[in-house]
Amino acid sequence: MQKLFVIKIGGNVIDDPVRLGKFLTDLSQINYPKILIHGGGKAASKLAERLGFSPAMVDGRRITDSETLKITVMMYAGLLNKEIVAKLQSLNVNALGLSGCDLNIIRASKRAVGDIDFGFVGDLFDGSVNANSLKLLLDGGIVPVFSAITHNGKGQLLNTNADTIASSVAAALSGLYDVQLNFCFEKRGVLSDPGNDASVIPSMTRTGYRRLLRTGKISKGMIPKLDNGFSAIGAGVGKVVIAHSDELLNTLVNEDTGTSLIN
Amino acid sequence: MQKLFVIKIGGNVIDDPVRLGKFLTDLSQINYPKILIHGGGKAASKLAERLGFSPAMVDGRRITDSETLKITVMMYAGLLNKEIVAKLQSLNVNALGLSGCDLNIIRASKRAVGDIDFGFVGDLFDGSVNANSLKLLLDGGIVPVFSAITHNGKGQLLNTNADTIASSVAAALSGLYDVQLNFCFEKRGVLSDPGNDASVIPSMTRTGYRRLLRTGKISKGMIPKLDNGFSAIGAGVGKVVIAHSDELLNTLVNEDTGTSLIN
Repeated sequence: MQKLFVIKIGGNVIDDPVRLGKFLTDLSQINYPKILIHGGGKAASKLAERLGFSPAMVDGRRITDSETLKITVMMYAGLLNKEIVAKLQSLNVNALGLSGCDLNIIRASKRAVGDIDFGFVGDLFDGSVNANSLKLLLDGGIVPVFSAITHNGKGQLLNTNADTIASSVAAALSGLYDVQLNFCFEKRGVLSDPGNDASVIPSMTRTGYRRLLRTGKISKGMIPKLDNGFSAIGAGVGKVVIAHSDELLNTLVNEDTGTSLIN
Repeated sequence: MQKLFVIKIGGNVIDDPVRLGKFLTDLSQINYPKILIHGGGKAASKLAERLGFSPAMVDGRRITDSETLKITVMMYAGLLNKEIVAKLQSLNVNALGLSGCDLNIIRASKRAVGDIDFGFVGDLFDGSVNANSLKLLLDGGIVPVFSAITHNGKGQLLNTNADTIASSVAAALSGLYDVQLNFCFEKRGVLSDPGNDASVIPSMTRTGYRRLLRTGKISKGMIPKLDNGFSAIGAGVGKVVIAHSDELLNTLVNEDTGTSLIN
């Protein structure tokens, strides 16, 4: 099967124009079909603050109320997505910015209200990702660039976790391609000692992950990446790498870059 | 040649959720290939105001400075575009939201600085619109939905007049389709007496337009639509209709709806 790279960049990369520029230039050098999923960074919170909103929180959890959703869509699906696409086009990458509503490519269901009403948050389900439409785009040499905005198919936009989108897109395409899923962020990989940047764990099994979780040594921000990464592996994705955004190209040629998740 | 509808909706329709909803429902009933181009309405100015910006003006002309550009991209390419696409998807229209950077589909050049520096405003040129990419989308049953944001191919987003985009898209596709260009807005057509809604001019030639211009009876807001409409006719577009957004479906079956521009 043909190789496909599904690449997620996190908010810390998005927030740093120099780092983002280097990352997109590196991405343009990958001569394989590829899909980019971007997080949002701090821009949406900053805009909300300028508009006088404090982030809606219930029991310490962030809530997407209707104003927050609008700000998120403006910033993620609008400004960030189009700036990334314009930059990639200037690097001769035929990028196409997408949110889940476009081509009905990622549907989600509004999270059910339990103890907390999270508001306009979308959860993915089996069949959320339209793999055939994505394949048609990839076959045309197009590089899809996703914001983390989805829709419910009934006209409602929803805010969705970008790590989950990356994992679900990778999983949905694993029957059609030999998929490598890269989570690119501001650390060199999963650290066994969060205070020590040199303590990168080179590879991790699901059993090793469970053991580490029990030690309490895994930083809280890593848990969604690891859960989503192992979920992709379980769904047939060939390789998942968690590494620094500066090392994207290294992960193609060097098995020792970042943390690889293995079955 | 196959019929194609290129449909522009203006800001007054965008600003009215009930009217926009009816318009999109009507659009979903058109069983021909179609392209939608939407203006922005007052949402971007309102957001700018909430953020404490007064619209940048020089000599009474609006300027797109870098903050205004960001707000425009957020609102037009982000929120408005994705809300329209999500609504169309709920009506079983396979909509794809696009700005000019996506698929490099509309390139523009930053307006040269003369007496006034208009800032990040993009002017279209011959070859701005990538007709072949648009045809591929249309052949796939996709309905492109354009915001009025373009790019210069070098990574810079630009704010462009939506009427001009509609006219240029229609013109670029006139070699491949029998194109009807519809400008949909809040009036019943071009009025011979701007104060009298019943004074719709049923059809207008270029000569008739020049004559009317000299009388000073044409409202200022109509001039860009008429200039762009006649420019499309000159470039081979079969029919241009300026009509009320509520009458979109009537323009398909009734020659007497709105104002038709003729060669």
